[in-house]
Amino acid sequence: MPSAEPPKTILNALQREVPAFMPGRGAIRAFRGANADTGRAPGSNERRGAPTGRSKLLKDVQAALSASQLKDGDTISFHHHLRNGDRVLNLVLQEVARAGVKNLTVAISSIFPVHGPLIEHIRSGVVSRLYTSYAVGPVAKVLSQELLLEAPMVMQTHGGRARAIESGELDIDVAFVAAPACDRYGNMNGVQGKAACGTLGYAMVDVQHAKQVVAITDSLVPYPACPIDITQECVDYVVEVDSIGDRSGIVSGTTRMTDEPEGLKIAQMAARVIDASGMLQDGFSFQTGAGGISLAVAASLKGLMHERGIQGSFAAGGITGYLVDMHEAGLFRNLFDVQCFDLRAIESYRNNRAHQAMSASMYANPHNRGAVVNQLDTVILGAAEVDLDFNVNVTTASSGLIIGGSGGHSDTAAGAQLAIITTRLTGGGFPKIVDRVTTATTPGETIDAVVTEAGIAVNPLQTELRDRLQAAGLPLVSIDALRGQAAAICTNSPGPPADGEPVALVEYRDGSIIDTVRAVGQIAGG
Amino acid sequence: MPSAEPPKTILNALQREVPAFMPGRGAIRAFRGANADTGRAPGSNERRGAPTGRSKLLKDVQAALSASQLKDGDTISFHHHLRNGDRVLNLVLQEVARAGVKNLTVAISSIFPVHGPLIEHIRSGVVSRLYTSYAVGPVAKVLSQELLLEAPMVMQTHGGRARAIESGELDIDVAFVAAPACDRYGNMNGVQGKAACGTLGYAMVDVQHAKQVVAITDSLVPYPACPIDITQECVDYVVEVDSIGDRSGIVSGTTRMTDEPEGLKIAQMAARVIDASGMLQDGFSFQTGAGGISLAVAASLKGLMHERGIQGSFAAGGITGYLVDMHEAGLFRNLFDVQCFDLRAIESYRNNRAHQAMSASMYANPHNRGAVVNQLDTVILGAAEVDLDFNVNVTTASSGLIIGGSGGHSDTAAGAQLAIITTRLTGGGFPKIVDRVTTATTPGETIDAVVTEAGIAVNPLQTELRDRLQAAGLPLVSIDALRGQAAAICTNSPGPPADGEPVALVEYRDGSIIDTVRAVGQIAGG
Repeated sequence: MPSAEPPKTILNALQREVPAFMPGRGAIRAFRGANADTGRAPGSNERRGAPTGRSKLLKDVQAALSASQLKDGDTISFHHHLRNGDRVLNLVLQEVARAGVKNLTVAISSIFPVHGPLIEHIRSGVVSRLYTSYAVGPVAKVLSQELLLEAPMVMQTHGGRARAIESGELDIDVAFVAAPACDRYGNMNGVQGKAACGTLGYAMVDVQHAKQVVAITDSLVPYPACPIDITQECVDYVVEVDSIGDRSGIVSGTTRMTDEPEGLKIAQMAARVIDASGMLQDGFSFQTGAGGISLAVAASLKGLMHERGIQGSFAAGGITGYLVDMHEAGLFRNLFDVQCFDLRAIESYRNNRAHQAMSASMYANPHNRGAVVNQLDTVILGAAEVDLDFNVNVTTASSGLIIGGSGGHSDTAAGAQLAIITTRLTGGGFPKIVDRVTTATTPGETIDAVVTEAGIAVNPLQTELRDRLQAAGLPLVSIDALRGQAAAICTNSPGPPADGEPVALVEYRDGSIIDTVRAVGQIAGG
Repeated sequence: MPSAEPPKTILNALQREVPAFMPGRGAIRAFRGANADTGRAPGSNERRGAPTGRSKLLKDVQAALSASQLKDGDTISFHHHLRNGDRVLNLVLQEVARAGVKNLTVAISSIFPVHGPLIEHIRSGVVSRLYTSYAVGPVAKVLSQELLLEAPMVMQTHGGRARAIESGELDIDVAFVAAPACDRYGNMNGVQGKAACGTLGYAMVDVQHAKQVVAITDSLVPYPACPIDITQECVDYVVEVDSIGDRSGIVSGTTRMTDEPEGLKIAQMAARVIDASGMLQDGFSFQTGAGGISLAVAASLKGLMHERGIQGSFAAGGITGYLVDMHEAGLFRNLFDVQCFDLRAIESYRNNRAHQAMSASMYANPHNRGAVVNQLDTVILGAAEVDLDFNVNVTTASSGLIIGGSGGHSDTAAGAQLAIITTRLTGGGFPKIVDRVTTATTPGETIDAVVTEAGIAVNPLQTELRDRLQAAGLPLVSIDALRGQAAAICTNSPGPPADGEPVALVEYRDGSIIDTVRAVGQIAGG
């Protein structure tokens, strides 16, 4: 009944008189019944899921694709905590292909050799765009050769991926989470089940922002799946499968300490650099990758810290058993863990509350209110190449072939007070200290020192560090001198830079493009 | 240099050639330097905070008000984990008043007697609107008498508050968090420090959505404040003060078990209702308030579960020592805790990973992907009044005076399979089973049974439950019969309903308005 003047009060479903309007609130929505669902505010950003009732369990992946209404052109996401043991990407893409969905963007935090089947899904048009932070194996190789995707692959940093998701720049329609243990309502943890992988730090960002979230588990546990790593209110559907992956694939070739004399020498020198920098004091914070030399640096530091009775505040990153040992020996009060790198780390995360999970955003997002990388004193990083500007390449070989990606490299280099690159002068006969890196992954302005078997080059921007290392009697050399020595001893020299069409864009953590990877053409043999 | 056709590639700050455009992505932002901050996407919803550097510590609350640019008309939020021991609301409002900021909306999850100074801030125009889920003490009384605020106070449910914040309906400019332990970068926990209050479930929602977050702590701990309840990437500023509150104020008068024979009789009967309903089986899930009878129901259940060797899945809610005992005795595998109700619960949360924190959204938000209340088998709730339609009032006395509010009442009643009201027929001489409740808080359609000393009234909608209780030989009566008995034995009768201007709107969990509280006028004596 239209009326010239709106009524001042209305009767709701309980016959209660309520005001029709309220200053500053506008029209009142009157109660219409406990299940009448009157509440969705116009323009609301709340994300209600489909499921009602007490279970979100669907019978298989097809049912989840159907329930989530996945369609052509959508973006789907995956995480890589199971690393080369992951079965979820392949499983889901197989079902997506079967469902006839095309033209998807796949955002997976890292790509491993096990993900080879992705190539066929790209060739067949099921997948037409790709975001990742790291790629090794057949997918990386094939995508280096020619542009198969509709647009160059975007290679982000771990923190940059979180930033892109939180900002809405990378807008995920359906996130698939490999859940080592999951209950019927979507609570998940990474410490139970046959594929227990530890923390779920990368997936934690996806589930907060994706329009739909599907948990894929091979260990359905009674409600509630405590201790919970990802909580039910973020999850739409749960699917049980035979296997989400093979835990033994978590430990990749990059998580063993070097035993080569030259690598050990570099590691010891890097530890001396940290010491001479003045940072090795109570409260010291530290991150190191899982590469052979990086782990040896941790071992050297352990000795120094023990000797002097130093207790650090935290070690962060992908966590390895080496860092767990240091924590348990009292050398670091806490561990911040975005991803467990080995079974010992998983065990520690399961049992020890001082071993704290962190999301990829908390870890490294440059655009939140302060990431853990900002609190790092020292990070030890590897390199495929370093150039005269201290720019680092961890994305491609000198041939242009994709062999990795930033992961947290650029994030930690930018955040840490002291970012040290440890590297041999040459690798596979090719020089690693070069005029100009084949691909710029991490900008030189964020790198403080490069430690090699032939000495230490300090970034000229870091005059105080140079003075301290000099005072400590460490063997300082110029980066150009290292380049010269590398050139003198290398047995292979890189060919001309790849000049094919762009196959990948290297995205810096803030979303800007720091470099382009160009097609290398067909590779003989490999 | 303007050009008819845009260049296909551009050189970035590292002199790297990157494409100017990418299909589907548009113009490329070229890298301009590690700290050039090129990355903010247009229309981005990311929430970057002010702090750079390694500390967010400011010298006092004034500095935080200034840094967060709090201005007239803003909305600020608080949480109530310290209950009647909280000092943070008063402290912040005193500083806000001193700063000359006016016309604020205050959203505090509950109001206690300790918050009396709020009245003066309302009278002086510092605070002009109020959202809360529960109010007792002088603020509740004064706001019942006349409309002092610019608009009626909005009384939400705990889940409805989370819904309103997540949907953007309740848009918080600055959230203040009482942090029992906090580090310089804003990581907080509730298990350390002199005001350790346990979980921070209500604040967990505010910090996710507020434009600015200020942690107020009286225990600044070394970085990182593990185990972390609220993480640094959500927090803008940290302020250290002498005291955030008095832990002894957490235990309010509502957290002691009844020892009156009538109360115990009601409790035992409620336990028999649960038993007869068929729900008391392995996997049973349960919530009870901290009222005297509610706790006695837990004690009765404990006996039954022990006797039969039943292990429940979880107990939820504000957690009391009684529920901790049941968990430790193996009667519930897990505890879900939005707020610790006593010191024993705090201790348990500190030490036991099976005692799991939950945010107010995970607990009870009706518009997320499934709250914990949806998984409840049984909830035991109190009432100020119940009427012939089973509508429940926990908001006002029969005089219209505000004496509480929903808290989780409406949320758990809506979510649980079996929602039981336990109440005496009369209170303070007034009838508690009435024709029509003074104020409708929780709709009758979500209430299954009312248990009194004079028998059990089953909601006529619940025919199966009625049959089960009948078969178990329980004393069933109609709600009208209970009303009649209450009328017969009451020694006071309520006056006519308050008919002043609206002073509060009772908001159902979905955001609709279920009732209006009208001004009662000046109250003599009290």
